[in-house]
Amino acid sequence: MIIPKEPRLTSQEESELEEITGEFDIHLQKIEGEHQTVYAMVGDERHELLINRLEGLEYIARVDTIQQPYKLMAKDSELANHTVRVNGTEIGTGFTIIAGQCTIDPKNPNFFLETAEAVKEAGGDILRGGVWKPRTSPHSYQGDVKALDILMEAKARTGLPVDTEVMDAEHVSLALDAGVDMFQVGARNALNYGLLKEIGRQINGRSTCVLLKRSMHMGKIEEFILAAEYIAAQGNPNIILCPRGTTPTMDGYRNHPDESITVLLKERTWAPVIVDPCHSVGKAIYVPFAAMAAASYGADGIIIETHVDPIHGIGDDPKQAVSPEVLARIIRDTKAIHEMQLGHTRHLAHNA
Amino acid sequence: MIIPKEPRLTSQEESELEEITGEFDIHLQKIEGEHQTVYAMVGDERHELLINRLEGLEYIARVDTIQQPYKLMAKDSELANHTVRVNGTEIGTGFTIIAGQCTIDPKNPNFFLETAEAVKEAGGDILRGGVWKPRTSPHSYQGDVKALDILMEAKARTGLPVDTEVMDAEHVSLALDAGVDMFQVGARNALNYGLLKEIGRQINGRSTCVLLKRSMHMGKIEEFILAAEYIAAQGNPNIILCPRGTTPTMDGYRNHPDESITVLLKERTWAPVIVDPCHSVGKAIYVPFAAMAAASYGADGIIIETHVDPIHGIGDDPKQAVSPEVLARIIRDTKAIHEMQLGHTRHLAHNA
Amino acid sequence: MIIPKEPRLTSQEESELEEITGEFDIHLQKIEGEHQTVYAMVGDERHELLINRLEGLEYIARVDTIQQPYKLMAKDSELANHTVRVNGTEIGTGFTIIAGQCTIDPKNPNFFLETAEAVKEAGGDILRGGVWKPRTSPHSYQGDVKALDILMEAKARTGLPVDTEVMDAEHVSLALDAGVDMFQVGARNALNYGLLKEIGRQINGRSTCVLLKRSMHMGKIEEFILAAEYIAAQGNPNIILCPRGTTPTMDGYRNHPDESITVLLKERTWAPVIVDPCHSVGKAIYVPFAAMAAASYGADGIIIETHVDPIHGIGDDPKQAVSPEVLARIIRDTKAIHEMQLGHTRHLAHNA
Amino acid sequence: MIIPKEPRLTSQEESELEEITGEFDIHLQKIEGEHQTVYAMVGDERHELLINRLEGLEYIARVDTIQQPYKLMAKDSELANHTVRVNGTEIGTGFTIIAGQCTIDPKNPNFFLETAEAVKEAGGDILRGGVWKPRTSPHSYQGDVKALDILMEAKARTGLPVDTEVMDAEHVSLALDAGVDMFQVGARNALNYGLLKEIGRQINGRSTCVLLKRSMHMGKIEEFILAAEYIAAQGNPNIILCPRGTTPTMDGYRNHPDESITVLLKERTWAPVIVDPCHSVGKAIYVPFAAMAAASYGADGIIIETHVDPIHGIGDDPKQAVSPEVLARIIRDTKAIHEMQLGHTRHLAHNA
Repeated sequence: MIIPKEPRLTSQEESELEEITGEFDIHLQKIEGEHQTVYAMVGDERHELLINRLEGLEYIARVDTIQQPYKLMAKDSELANHTVRVNGTEIGTGFTIIAGQCTIDPKNPNFFLETAEAVKEAGGDILRGGVWKPRTSPHSYQGDVKALDILMEAKARTGLPVDTEVMDAEHVSLALDAGVDMFQVGARNALNYGLLKEIGRQINGRSTCVLLKRSMHMGKIEEFILAAEYIAAQGNPNIILCPRGTTPTMDGYRNHPDESITVLLKERTWAPVIVDPCHSVGKAIYVPFAAMAAASYGADGIIIETHVDPIHGIGDDPKQAVSPEVLARIIRDTKAIHEMQLGHTRHLAHNA
Repeated sequence: MIIPKEPRLTSQEESELEEITGEFDIHLQKIEGEHQTVYAMVGDERHELLINRLEGLEYIARVDTIQQPYKLMAKDSELANHTVRVNGTEIGTGFTIIAGQCTIDPKNPNFFLETAEAVKEAGGDILRGGVWKPRTSPHSYQGDVKALDILMEAKARTGLPVDTEVMDAEHVSLALDAGVDMFQVGARNALNYGLLKEIGRQINGRSTCVLLKRSMHMGKIEEFILAAEYIAAQGNPNIILCPRGTTPTMDGYRNHPDESITVLLKERTWAPVIVDPCHSVGKAIYVPFAAMAAASYGADGIIIETHVDPIHGIGDDPKQAVSPEVLARIIRDTKAIHEMQLGHTRHLAHNA
Repeated sequence: MIIPKEPRLTSQEESELEEITGEFDIHLQKIEGEHQTVYAMVGDERHELLINRLEGLEYIARVDTIQQPYKLMAKDSELANHTVRVNGTEIGTGFTIIAGQCTIDPKNPNFFLETAEAVKEAGGDILRGGVWKPRTSPHSYQGDVKALDILMEAKARTGLPVDTEVMDAEHVSLALDAGVDMFQVGARNALNYGLLKEIGRQINGRSTCVLLKRSMHMGKIEEFILAAEYIAAQGNPNIILCPRGTTPTMDGYRNHPDESITVLLKERTWAPVIVDPCHSVGKAIYVPFAAMAAASYGADGIIIETHVDPIHGIGDDPKQAVSPEVLARIIRDTKAIHEMQLGHTRHLAHNA
Repeated sequence: MIIPKEPRLTSQEESELEEITGEFDIHLQKIEGEHQTVYAMVGDERHELLINRLEGLEYIARVDTIQQPYKLMAKDSELANHTVRVNGTEIGTGFTIIAGQCTIDPKNPNFFLETAEAVKEAGGDILRGGVWKPRTSPHSYQGDVKALDILMEAKARTGLPVDTEVMDAEHVSLALDAGVDMFQVGARNALNYGLLKEIGRQINGRSTCVLLKRSMHMGKIEEFILAAEYIAAQGNPNIILCPRGTTPTMDGYRNHPDESITVLLKERTWAPVIVDPCHSVGKAIYVPFAAMAAASYGADGIIIETHVDPIHGIGDDPKQAVSPEVLARIIRDTKAIHEMQLGHTRHLAHNA
């Protein structure tokens, strides 16, 4: 929909509009309202350059598009029936638990190996372990490739698929070669399109899955889905979206909890949504509540930092990781809430 | 804590600081750090004018206060053991359900009277009905005092305490005289200190309760609690805090869901917290999820718009009100989640 | 524009849509796009209740309106040629300077009287002086009616029109009776529709002017203009809009500077815009920069806190007030920038 | 400063605190206030892991640090006297103009070559030209290496240093080899620490300069400066900070203008600040105002999209680029405002 600044365009302006939209195979339908004439665009209106050119015209107030700019990730795309799997485990059909440490301490491998066993026992489905870490300060610990061996050792011992964060092309190859099942893209890299394309390229033709975290800034929902579109466009749509809190607005939480975006994402895309409550609230004592809220808003699972001895963890673990005992309680309660949430959704669908 | 701009103050600057803080009975404790000397304020540091004067000094970078600026509403105040009651019903000891219409339609009283019966049957504890409404546009429906009679008729029929929104001193007197049990202050008036004082004055010595909604802007938590302090300072601390969503940031919800603030409020104040999920998400189909999230974050209850025939409602009801059947499902599920939430809290307290 | 959830509506859904819009005298124009059919509303689409009813329908994704919801304040209203005047001074034809104290200290009247003379000498057009103050804490100084006499004394001495903030009906009558020329509505009361109507009613038929500050929350621009519409709807459109910073997002400023909204306001409404840089940045040393930025973005003037001895001021003055000497520099520079800004606007208009 | 949850710690808790801080060579100074005992940390308190461990303790409410977490970029670092230069031109001693196209169109090289001449004639100091572009959608134009030749041809013809955006290691090498003088890191990559380190590594020992844009999310100021610290830590501190608007909050601008952050940045770091008004407001007609506001807030320069025929540009140019004639007016006015701004700063310093 093209909305002019003045109530009516001159015929010359109208011709110019038609010429520009014509270049993009868009037909204009004129709508003469009581107060103002506007123009509907019939055809594929999602061209970024078309919108830029129209909005650049002096006499145009704004252009509102109705179609979403993403194609592959959209709910009505041909991929809508795609099932995301992590080493055989289906995502989106139950409530999936990813748990483990923010950062594996290469000097104390037992912490992670014991945590891995505890995660399995508590009912976790996938094991996370941070090998490399994007720290705000260049003077902080940035990770160590030795941790990758510890992660793979934990996979061998528990039989759980494993997930780790990757920050550049080299991490992707190393992790792929080692047999990592799931790559995590952190919030700071969620708009690093070079990395997204690189991951998409390297996982094409494989069963590896990507968990894409939401960027910290509270932009449009479509910006998040478009980032996933970058990966999917390389050929492998094994993608999970992960809200993890946005720019903090309240003294008390590390970030601003955004589990509520889950419903809105699931209306627009077929991709499963797994929420990270730990980075959202940023403190272990709040994590159970944020996890329960994620299930309330329809998440397909949660990713939880867990540590057998949090205070001796490194990275974010001393602050955010819950004990295996708390993890077990969270799993029990979120699974129950997940069922309640499905009940409401079915009830609404039935009465629509 | 007073933090100077430069690593060290001159002795003349230090004397000026001491003179100013002395006027407010504050003693300064000097902390000579490796990189910078800072000054701790010992005494009651909460004077707004003291802070303004210190921050007005050229050589001071900032002043960080440790004490909260509210007194009566604080968790450690003498009111901490106060129990909020609405016509006998204790708030904060179970999970309270307030339900009813955003706006009572004076032309169709039966809608509200039937809704009232349905709320009672579904398990509601308190009945809400909007008599006057603060609309964004002066050209929209603003309410009608006839609706007050319908509200009181519903109270008589159901025996439920009733709640209505008040916007000025006259509403307060009319509602008090009619026998309204609970006054609601809307988000737009949450910083209207004149109204808050007027309510506090009129309810002093009575059992009337006030439900104070959070202002739409995402200010500091203390700003919300200080608004409640205005009411309490008049003598009646029968106050409930109500998060209801803040300035919207995502295309899809009416406001930005803020139920997560509940935990932070309950850490700082003794007041019960009842969440309004309807204004937060702004669309009936999302309300059950937001209600469940509120219970997850430890709310003491929810306030839900309900209508026997939403599409023929007025005000926000056509968009936001759920049917009595959905209300009953919400009540069942939120009460279950409330128990889970208490379980986590007890478990954490036990292991602290 | 009505956008359904699915690509096509059933004929039954279409009929229901037509029936609802018909009640509001809206005709539907169907637009059959390649991917989706949407419906344009022809007629006055600004009914809040119509939008609520349409958005309440299960099969409707959203409703986008093209018309602005305000009428009187709109650029194309019959009031567009109205000239706002403060006691004879035209606002909007030059660059207006309002200056004076945030809070008049009733114990030290000379501070204000001397400030008033200094404001006049520096080139100020209107004198501000706070009599009553909306403080965040009920335990802080709230103002004193004695200050009103001091304000009127300053008016008598300098001949400048005077401005003061009002918070309730009683303030309005007292200030009107005393001969105050301009009422200021603070950010916390900008959505207090009861007060806005009361002011509108009391100034109707008089020459008094209202300076309406923007609410602290960063809502839609139309929400700000609609608040002004409440005053105008009572009959006196002598209204000035005043951006003053929104919810703070950066450690360093008191609020988030929002002078940039000036251009957007002036595109939509005929009302003059005067910016308050002091509350925006919140510290005297930053005020000159924020004042210059306001002029850059096309403001019709600024309102500046000034004090002959800031550190002995009360209220916000110790922190935010500039000296008369700095005020004079600000006036000189902002007036020069105002001319540059007009030059750019003329140049753009000429080349459009 | 360590603030416990309760007014007093037990001696066991106090010992645990001392043990943890001791590991990081921090000495604790106890401050026994009237209401609460707090603990000042004397020593280098900036360890991320120390803070995480302290905040992970059950009995600690929060940890406030006084020292900034960055070292090299800080105003009091040994680099404070470093002068940033772009191919000989000093940045920070006058008002620098970077101008040119968002995206060089490889099919129409003359547009850029003519724009380059026009930029030089208008008074530009540095020429920008986009070779590769990070587009929100993977289906949009992403750039073409042929454009690099056109950029270098323009450098040869005009003698102006040239700037282009880089998104990965390969771009950095190609641009370095070609002789590009300044690398631009876009908002989406501002927290892509891998890229920042890669750039730092490749420019080490060379005279190449980096213009680091601010990430779109409105996080803490220190997060922006820490991103620059990543580059500086590799050895070459030839860095300029560039605010370019944050997440949009108002219907009307592409982003939320953030030129006001300039003053706050310059208080904390020695790095020059150059503002991008085009991406901030996002529409050519608003650009002059935003440019003037940037100068008002103390920017050391601006970066402006310019095109000899904007409507036939590609990328953002049809919407955001100004004509060379408007550029010349902007340069004239911003340089005048820059002088006024310096005048205020000198006046304040003189009266401090």
